[in-house]
Amino acid sequence: MWQLYQFPLCPFSRKVRLLLSEKGIAYELWRENPWEGRDEFFAMNPAGRTPALHDPERGKTLSDSRAICEFFEETVEKNPLISGTADQRAEIRRLIALFDESFYGDVTGPLLYERMKKRLILRQSPDSRILREAMRLAHDHLYYIDYLIDNRPWLAGSTMTLADLTAAAQISVADYLGGIDWSNHDQARGWYAVIKSRPSFRPMLSERMEVIQPPRHYAEVDG
Amino acid sequence: MWQLYQFPLCPFSRKVRLLLSEKGIAYELWRENPWEGRDEFFAMNPAGRTPALHDPERGKTLSDSRAICEFFEETVEKNPLISGTADQRAEIRRLIALFDESFYGDVTGPLLYERMKKRLILRQSPDSRILREAMRLAHDHLYYIDYLIDNRPWLAGSTMTLADLTAAAQISVADYLGGIDWSNHDQARGWYAVIKSRPSFRPMLSERMEVIQPPRHYAEVDG
Repeated sequence: MWQLYQFPLCPFSRKVRLLLSEKGIAYELWRENPWEGRDEFFAMNPAGRTPALHDPERGKTLSDSRAICEFFEETVEKNPLISGTADQRAEIRRLIALFDESFYGDVTGPLLYERMKKRLILRQSPDSRILREAMRLAHDHLYYIDYLIDNRPWLAGSTMTLADLTAAAQISVADYLGGIDWSNHDQARGWYAVIKSRPSFRPMLSERMEVIQPPRHYAEVDG
Repeated sequence: MWQLYQFPLCPFSRKVRLLLSEKGIAYELWRENPWEGRDEFFAMNPAGRTPALHDPERGKTLSDSRAICEFFEETVEKNPLISGTADQRAEIRRLIALFDESFYGDVTGPLLYERMKKRLILRQSPDSRILREAMRLAHDHLYYIDYLIDNRPWLAGSTMTLADLTAAAQISVADYLGGIDWSNHDQARGWYAVIKSRPSFRPMLSERMEVIQPPRHYAEVDG
């Protein structure tokens, strides 16, 4: 069976978990703290980042969340998540990059550094100026989701795609870390509530990262 | 015809240019300084990043370098660059991510900030400590290329793929900015010399970014 090396608040691992579940692919969760720089993990993924997927029976290893998702999209027919015409697939991939790069760089990355890495590893206090800026930028991204959902039922069009799973994975980590203020984002909140209620999403909402607690609304499916 | 919005030292635009040329797709170069935050450019790409591709006749716009490359790989048969089995395609995409994310984050990004952005925009001097660290990390990446090329003719296997173009695009920008010390990297240097000599690569080597000059070996094909 596939072993997924990840930690609970890794947004890229969450994306892969959602895709695996939606496609009905069985996997085990293996805990990896990439900041510990374990040699065995670098042997699996020279980039030293989570997620990595390893199948010991077949001696196969995959890494990089987008490469992993494309692999299963190509090899498992069930529930296509990068589907449609070439134009539609380009739109899905554009949005995946927007959330994996811009949202992560603006919001999830700084929140993880200030609220998780500083607490767990560096034993420092978070910088409130950086937290405020991340929360301000989160609003800009939520406004963009509001705009998309005003025009389409899902982020990339008429069906749920990997763009929705990618955005929800990033947002869920930011939400866990208290970085999301949902007021005035009715469209984004409605879209997120639908994703949150999917069977693929529920197990993640009940998991906790040591020491760090999420706000009360985090795991509420109608929250 | 496609209009490519880019600036000369954008490594992601260079990757797209190499792919377009290798596939024989005609395009015009349009200069875009993403740091100026032009409204018309944000309308084309809400992420505000280069490259973006626009076809005014067909009213079509593409953005994000990986989404663009996947689009042309799907729609243009000539010279497949993400080819082979699903496993091989996963390996190509893993390496693309390694260079677009890790190499960029470790090397190209800091060099662009210190040597281009500080000079052109912020009117500050570069931080020599950050430059030294970027050059140290560049060696680690070149050692990894040496290791790959010891075992395979190209980075991802027996044929040239988008992994090679991605790595060469990042390295060429770092090399322009004086961040690459090629000594003790014979395999990587040999591999890069082959890519440099391709017709798709030559036009880029003769372009210059205003104010900033590359080192002498930069444009030498046997350099």
